[in-house]
Amino acid sequence: MNIKPYVRKANYYETDQMGIIHHSNYIRWFEEARVDYMEQLGFGYDKAVESGIDFALLNVECTYKSMVRFGDTVRIIVSIAELSKARMTVSYQVLDDKTGELRSTGTTSHCYYHQNKKRPVSLKSELPELYALFEQNIAKSPRL
Amino acid sequence: MNIKPYVRKANYYETDQMGIIHHSNYIRWFEEARVDYMEQLGFGYDKAVESGIDFALLNVECTYKSMVRFGDTVRIIVSIAELSKARMTVSYQVLDDKTGELRSTGTTSHCYYHQNKKRPVSLKSELPELYALFEQNIAKSPRL
Amino acid sequence: MNIKPYVRKANYYETDQMGIIHHSNYIRWFEEARVDYMEQLGFGYDKAVESGIDFALLNVECTYKSMVRFGDTVRIIVSIAELSKARMTVSYQVLDDKTGELRSTGTTSHCYYHQNKKRPVSLKSELPELYALFEQNIAKSPRL
Amino acid sequence: MNIKPYVRKANYYETDQMGIIHHSNYIRWFEEARVDYMEQLGFGYDKAVESGIDFALLNVECTYKSMVRFGDTVRIIVSIAELSKARMTVSYQVLDDKTGELRSTGTTSHCYYHQNKKRPVSLKSELPELYALFEQNIAKSPRL
Repeated sequence: MNIKPYVRKANYYETDQMGIIHHSNYIRWFEEARVDYMEQLGFGYDKAVESGIDFALLNVECTYKSMVRFGDTVRIIVSIAELSKARMTVSYQVLDDKTGELRSTGTTSHCYYHQNKKRPVSLKSELPELYALFEQNIAKSPRL
Repeated sequence: MNIKPYVRKANYYETDQMGIIHHSNYIRWFEEARVDYMEQLGFGYDKAVESGIDFALLNVECTYKSMVRFGDTVRIIVSIAELSKARMTVSYQVLDDKTGELRSTGTTSHCYYHQNKKRPVSLKSELPELYALFEQNIAKSPRL
Repeated sequence: MNIKPYVRKANYYETDQMGIIHHSNYIRWFEEARVDYMEQLGFGYDKAVESGIDFALLNVECTYKSMVRFGDTVRIIVSIAELSKARMTVSYQVLDDKTGELRSTGTTSHCYYHQNKKRPVSLKSELPELYALFEQNIAKSPRL
Repeated sequence: MNIKPYVRKANYYETDQMGIIHHSNYIRWFEEARVDYMEQLGFGYDKAVESGIDFALLNVECTYKSMVRFGDTVRIIVSIAELSKARMTVSYQVLDDKTGELRSTGTTSHCYYHQNKKRPVSLKSELPELYALFEQNIAKSPRL
C-alpha cells in the first residue's frame, strides 16, 4: 500500500511568545498523522473506536531539530516501527513541506484498550483485519 | 453563600506570537471558573456529570479589554446572570489580580443535557438541589 | 473574487469527555478559517504580520447549533460583515461538510494593532492594498 | 532550598472522548511545573525571558502509567536530572494528589537560546545566578 505523508499548516494559535510553534503541539500533530495513516490503510481510527478499541498511549517521545513557524506547512511521515499482539510503536518524521528540512522526529507507543472490558487486549484477537493491515505495512515502512 | 473569585496564573503555552495570551484560552478559563464556582456552591460539576447531566453550551461571548501576559495572575468573578428551568446564563469578569484592571468580560449560555436521554432536560426536575443553589445565588450575584 | 469555504477535519484531541468537540475549539477554527480567507484574498495573514500589523481581537461570539464529533469534516464559510478604517467584523458559518447541517455561527471583531507603535491604527492608511481587498469582498459576502 | 511539588487540578477541557485527560496535556503540565519550580528557586522564568534567554526544548519524553480524570488533582515533583553549561534535563513525576498513585513520569531537555543572538548560549555565562541555583539543587533533587 502506498501511504502518503500527512500534510498540514501550522496555525497561529499554535505559536507561543518565542514566535514559534509551541512544542506541545507536535504531540497533537503526531495524533493527526496517525489517524490519517489509519484512514489511508482503510481502517479508520473511528472504526476502531466504534469496535470498542482505543489506542491508549503508553509513551511519547519527541526530539526537536529546528523550529516551525506560523504559516509553515509540515509533512509528517508515519511508519510502524514495532508491532506485537499487545503493543505497537509508531514513528514520525516532521519535515518542512517546502524545503524538506527535518523539524522533528518522534515515537508513540500504544496498547489496545477495550472500552467495555476496561483493560488492554490483543489487537490480533480483537481486530484481526486491522492487525493484518499493520503487519503488511511494517516491513514497507521507512525506519527512522 | 460567599463565593470567592477564581484565581489562576497565565501559562507560557497559552501565549501566542504577539506575546500575549491567545484569545481562545479565555473561553477555557471561563470553564475553569465555572467549575470552581459550582464546587464552592457545594455541588461540583463532576457530581452533575455523575448524575448524567452535562451543561451543554449554547452560546459563548467574550469581550477583550486589555491584554494578559505570561506570568500575570487573573481573578475571575463568576455570577449567574439568568436562570430558568431549561437554561442558564453565566457572566464572567476577568481582572488582573494585582492591579484589579479589567481584562475581559463574557457570558456563556447553557442548557442541561441528559447523557442517557440524549436531550435537554429541566434542571429543576433533574437536579432540584443544584437548581435551588443556583437560585439562591442569582440575586446575590454582582451583575456585570 | 471567488472565495472557497475552509474545510477541515475535527481532531481526536479536540474532543472532550462528552464525546463531542469541545466548544473552545470553534474559536480556533474561526481563526484558521480567517487566515485561509486572507490567503485566498491574496494578502496572507503572515504578510500583514510582517508589515507590523496584528488583527487584535476585540470580541468573539459563537452560537452552538449542533454537535461536531471526531472524524466529522466541517466547512466554514467566512464573510466580512462590517468594515471601517479602524475595525472589522468577520462572520462564520460552520456546516457539516457531508450533510450541510449547520453546526455553529459566530463573529469576531478586530482592530488593527501596530506592533511597533503599540497601538491600534487605521488599516486604510497602514495597509491600503489589504483594506481595498476587504472592501471589494464585503458586498459579495453572504450575510449570516 | 525546600521545593514544594506543583499541585493543579485536571480541567474539563483537557479531557478527551475516552473520558480521560488527553496525553498531550501532560507536556503542558510539565511546563507549568517547571515554571513553578524556577519561581520557587527565586529566579522566575519570566525573569530569564526578560534577560533574553528562552529554554528551548530539545527533547520531551513522557510515560503514562495510569489515567487522570476530570476533577482529579495531580502533584508534580520536578527535579534537575542533568546540568551542563549548555544543556539541562528536567525530570517529572506526576502523582495523584490524594492517593499518591503514580500517573506519569517524564523528562524535558533544554538548551538556552538567546533571543537576540538567535543561537544557543552558555547559561553559566549568560545567567550565572540562575545557573548557580540550578547547581545547588541538582544534588538535592530526588532522582527518578
